[in-house]
Amino acid sequence: MDAPLSIDTNNPEALTLALQVAGGRVLINSITGEERALEQVLPLAAEYGAAVIGLALDDDGIPPTAEVRVQVAQKIVERAAAYGLQPEDILIDSLTLSVGADHRAASVSLETMYRVRNELGMNLTAGASNVSFGLPRRKTINETYLAMAIAMGLNCPIVDAAKVRQIVLTADLLAGRDEYATRFLDDYRQEMQALAAD
Amino acid sequence: MDAPLSIDTNNPEALTLALQVAGGRVLINSITGEERALEQVLPLAAEYGAAVIGLALDDDGIPPTAEVRVQVAQKIVERAAAYGLQPEDILIDSLTLSVGADHRAASVSLETMYRVRNELGMNLTAGASNVSFGLPRRKTINETYLAMAIAMGLNCPIVDAAKVRQIVLTADLLAGRDEYATRFLDDYRQEMQALAAD
Repeated sequence: MDAPLSIDTNNPEALTLALQVAGGRVLINSITGEERALEQVLPLAAEYGAAVIGLALDDDGIPPTAEVRVQVAQKIVERAAAYGLQPEDILIDSLTLSVGADHRAASVSLETMYRVRNELGMNLTAGASNVSFGLPRRKTINETYLAMAIAMGLNCPIVDAAKVRQIVLTADLLAGRDEYATRFLDDYRQEMQALAAD
Repeated sequence: MDAPLSIDTNNPEALTLALQVAGGRVLINSITGEERALEQVLPLAAEYGAAVIGLALDDDGIPPTAEVRVQVAQKIVERAAAYGLQPEDILIDSLTLSVGADHRAASVSLETMYRVRNELGMNLTAGASNVSFGLPRRKTINETYLAMAIAMGLNCPIVDAAKVRQIVLTADLLAGRDEYATRFLDDYRQEMQALAAD
């Protein structure tokens, strides 16, 4: 099959076998800044031309501050470069945990996004719906967080595209990426036509 | 009357008369970085102990870049300080224009907010609903923009509080300002009780 795959395993042997048979360009989901992950996975990514998601945690665990998460992201980027990977081969995940468990969880992640995007120039991913785990009004929390994260520079969120289409088009417009509001207005017209056809 | 007033006039004589009769602490809406505005209004603000909204534009008009808007904001803060005003007496408005007219309008304003908040440490205001002028889906645009702006540091938006209550509570939670999600959960419980009572 030719569709690009995202491979999610902690087992380097399984990863190697998957890379050997996968068609298209693979996204490895994910490595961390832990020494073992860097040493085992980065050479494989380089060998098979795969892209990699890098989680901003390391052997000391999940850093409580944006400052240290940015440092971990920088370490991942530097180590990847040493194996011949380019910055565009890496997506940094600033770690989105539930604000129900820790009220600073989202703000630390958002600050990390802004700094990794602006100081390191890296592309960003996030499992955006984790943020609302254990709380009511999950849809409102997830949509609000997605808008805030896009403002901070998030450009490759892991989302259900059908569910967040309108929010993402709107945030994209507000982030200055939709000249003449073309995509935003096209989507609106399609919605109106669909309503008229009902 | 004792309720604090916001006075909106370009006429220094009218402003002076209003300051003389207004009770409570007045908010002057607004000055710009234009020389005439700084020289005429800042001494009045200092004399009457008023707070001031400072718009990030000056004698050269509305700056097209965040860089220059931050410079204008800094000029306003410095000139205000020379008249004895404190940073907390000033709210900076980074100018929110319609993304329907210029697709960079919102992103320049958002970037200005982040920098004014983080580099100058100032409080921020914005007329958040201007952003959707002339476009459809105004409610979605306004709510998304408000969430993005709060992520950037906006803390005194000019809004219809009844309309944006839920979005602001959610963005506040995600910005790390609602320990144990207390206010967010209280609001949810009140909504559920109101539904149960129906």
